[in-house]
Amino acid sequence: MASTMMAQREFDLDKRKNFSEWYNTIIYASGLIDGRYNVAGFVVHKPLATRLMRGIYALLEPELEADGHEPVAFPTVIPKENFEIEKEHVAGFVPQVFWVTKGGGEEFARPLALRPTSETAFYQMFALWIKAHSDLPMKFYQSCTVFRYEHETLPFIRGREFHWIETHDAFATAKEALGQTATDNEIFSRVLFDHLGVPVTVFKRPQWDKFPGGEETFAYDVLMPDGKMLQCGSTHYLGQNFTKAFGVKFTKADGGEEFPFSTCFGPGVWRIVAAVASVHGDNKGLILPFSVAPVQVAVVPIAKGENAEAVVKECRKIAAGLKKDGIRVVCDDSDKSPGFKYNYWEMRGVPLRVEIGGRELEAGTATVVRRDTREKKVVPLAKLADELRKEGSAMLATLKDAAEADLKAHVTEAKTKEEVKNVLESKGGFVRTHFCSTARDGEACAKELQAFTIGGKVRGTLVNKEEKPAAGAKCVVCGHSAKTVVYVAKQY
Amino acid sequence: MASTMMAQREFDLDKRKNFSEWYNTIIYASGLIDGRYNVAGFVVHKPLATRLMRGIYALLEPELEADGHEPVAFPTVIPKENFEIEKEHVAGFVPQVFWVTKGGGEEFARPLALRPTSETAFYQMFALWIKAHSDLPMKFYQSCTVFRYEHETLPFIRGREFHWIETHDAFATAKEALGQTATDNEIFSRVLFDHLGVPVTVFKRPQWDKFPGGEETFAYDVLMPDGKMLQCGSTHYLGQNFTKAFGVKFTKADGGEEFPFSTCFGPGVWRIVAAVASVHGDNKGLILPFSVAPVQVAVVPIAKGENAEAVVKECRKIAAGLKKDGIRVVCDDSDKSPGFKYNYWEMRGVPLRVEIGGRELEAGTATVVRRDTREKKVVPLAKLADELRKEGSAMLATLKDAAEADLKAHVTEAKTKEEVKNVLESKGGFVRTHFCSTARDGEACAKELQAFTIGGKVRGTLVNKEEKPAAGAKCVVCGHSAKTVVYVAKQY
Repeated sequence: MASTMMAQREFDLDKRKNFSEWYNTIIYASGLIDGRYNVAGFVVHKPLATRLMRGIYALLEPELEADGHEPVAFPTVIPKENFEIEKEHVAGFVPQVFWVTKGGGEEFARPLALRPTSETAFYQMFALWIKAHSDLPMKFYQSCTVFRYEHETLPFIRGREFHWIETHDAFATAKEALGQTATDNEIFSRVLFDHLGVPVTVFKRPQWDKFPGGEETFAYDVLMPDGKMLQCGSTHYLGQNFTKAFGVKFTKADGGEEFPFSTCFGPGVWRIVAAVASVHGDNKGLILPFSVAPVQVAVVPIAKGENAEAVVKECRKIAAGLKKDGIRVVCDDSDKSPGFKYNYWEMRGVPLRVEIGGRELEAGTATVVRRDTREKKVVPLAKLADELRKEGSAMLATLKDAAEADLKAHVTEAKTKEEVKNVLESKGGFVRTHFCSTARDGEACAKELQAFTIGGKVRGTLVNKEEKPAAGAKCVVCGHSAKTVVYVAKQY
Repeated sequence: MASTMMAQREFDLDKRKNFSEWYNTIIYASGLIDGRYNVAGFVVHKPLATRLMRGIYALLEPELEADGHEPVAFPTVIPKENFEIEKEHVAGFVPQVFWVTKGGGEEFARPLALRPTSETAFYQMFALWIKAHSDLPMKFYQSCTVFRYEHETLPFIRGREFHWIETHDAFATAKEALGQTATDNEIFSRVLFDHLGVPVTVFKRPQWDKFPGGEETFAYDVLMPDGKMLQCGSTHYLGQNFTKAFGVKFTKADGGEEFPFSTCFGPGVWRIVAAVASVHGDNKGLILPFSVAPVQVAVVPIAKGENAEAVVKECRKIAAGLKKDGIRVVCDDSDKSPGFKYNYWEMRGVPLRVEIGGRELEAGTATVVRRDTREKKVVPLAKLADELRKEGSAMLATLKDAAEADLKAHVTEAKTKEEVKNVLESKGGFVRTHFCSTARDGEACAKELQAFTIGGKVRGTLVNKEEKPAAGAKCVVCGHSAKTVVYVAKQY
């Protein structure tokens, strides 16, 4: 088994005390990736990461399809001139673009970008595909990697090539397009919480922090163990900006031409991996939710003395039975010690371990151990598959509760900018506070606050809860009348 | 529904009479791809092609995993110096490479290749991962796109970015590595025939037509309707060439160091699409095998007069029931005529059509129409899902028989090079003939034959059948003693 080739490293780091060291150790030690590829900022996804990402795609794609999106596969390269069509977009993305300038020994007259995002590829096709009212809505998604020339990189958080999904949708009306962003918000936060146990806070971002070329950005913040936020995805209402720029027009039902209203949604599969690893992991390694764990169950024979061979044989049989039952299982029959095996599979986040020894076999039972609580439970072999599924669900419920409680404990009220700063420095998380405005006129205050707090950014206003400032409340920065309640946090 | 946006084009072309026109029309008219993307040689895969490719990946990936391969995801870019390590490999691939030379406004000191294939990315990691005998075999696969700067392009056949799988395997012995190529041959030909109805002829390629840097190449030819061959994949025994070049070593069980023996297998998902489309399609459009058809069943209400609404409602209910039953179904309740709908879904290759009108509803039946034979069958609604699956299997059996018969009819014996030429010009297919050698000393004859026949290439020797030249047989080109029986064909 190729996976056992890696030496088991010692690992006992506390993510709350030193998250950076914990994270930088666990992503390699768990076998998710190898960071030694010889191009900086690009990583090799080993089987664990590859399968975990596939599991995340397999949660999101059916949701998008049920919502009417169809899958497409566009080219990885986009010609430079496409980027120059939408002015804000070009300014936002071009500084990060990788350029393909040669092929087969020839220098290209026009360089090709490695897609940093694909609006400028999709909209030229929308101009060909959208003609009549009946062509709308048109909703596509693409599962792919995108490329951004980032200067500081950190695997699954910021990379030069990363895995995501991008949707590109066009609608006849602004109302439908805005409705789509609400659906995107719902899908993203539901999938992350229900299946992965990761609570998501959905914000409408301030006007100065929106997608280049868009009208409104809604984004998904996940609280990381060091109190900073990781934006794991976003959806954007683009109005008619891109359809006008690319000449996408349709004939209305009542005659006359109109530009469609469009949206794009980017669930960050890479960042979801980072969130799952960070929110649930502990000082023994990863803890993966049962639904997406590439290995859901590790069967470990406790084989000593004369019946050792019989135990191993029986364990293989039991594992084969579980596999038939649709459970992703390994039987670790290597000659390592049980303790080594426990550490090994714990580090890799396997949610459940099944221990079977001679006594268990005689009794027709197995001991099931949960990765998160280490709780042990003796269950009859005849009901093993059902019990494992039940424990998998119970474990997810525990992970959800813990993550929700942690998030709740990291929302703090602040009445002055000094308080904002103190909270961000002492415990991190979100600081709820009064603010003058999330329209363009609030940008100066946001910049001042960011400088004052050394990185605290206005995340925006809550989407799932309407919050109005208290009567007479003042902006925590400028002291003028506060139009809004915002959340401030540091971010990745 | 976005898919109905496309106007139905007239289509009545005979693939046997003018395959090129047939192919160049059908790949667009069926809605597989759009060829109007503004970078030459790159295409937009519409939902039909995207889903069809996913279906093909879903057939191949579990086979590779059952054979012990684990999925990985490597970077799309490979630094130039990696290519320079294996000399034959660099000479074979570099003329086709796209180069990324700039990022974020900076010119790179060392250009990055868009992977044309990933040996040079994998082997540097193998050097880190393979240390001991117990690390072997190591077997990985990656599902991805690769990039080649081709001058002549044709969608699904030759493109600048195409979809494939690549495996990269390392073994302790040459025997195991060669055994792997035999397994690859078996997997490929079985999947293509059993699930897709496409017969594959497996060749050991001549020494002058092998993978750059490899020792032996085995490749899969599919007969196209114009008598030319499409190589849909290949597997390569690389010996120790790449492991030596990249310094990949392991400690043997008995001590001492050794370089592993390696293989790589490239199922061409793009070319499999071309093969399925071409082998099965007819003058009404695509014919897709039930197992991979993105839409397996189109329900068409025959709704006239007063009960029209009831019929449409009932059709929707029936389609919803089939969907629940795991069948990929659409209910075409648009206001187009039934005839228009028949043409539309036939063009897109939907294997089965279900027609339901007022009379059928009263009788509790439906009419099932097969895409390939147009045979109609009245079946009870209560058994519809089962009957559809049965018809899907029956249709695959018919497609297989037809394709096999066609291949059999296109293997012709030839005793002189004039005969070889005549057969290739008159009917195409394979020409079986005596040949001096498929080792390097046969290359001059192969070149002469290719020039004489205007494109006839020696495909190699059969893998699944040992064939010895008749006693005293002479090479069809040089007249020297023939060591081998080869097959000559034109190719894409």
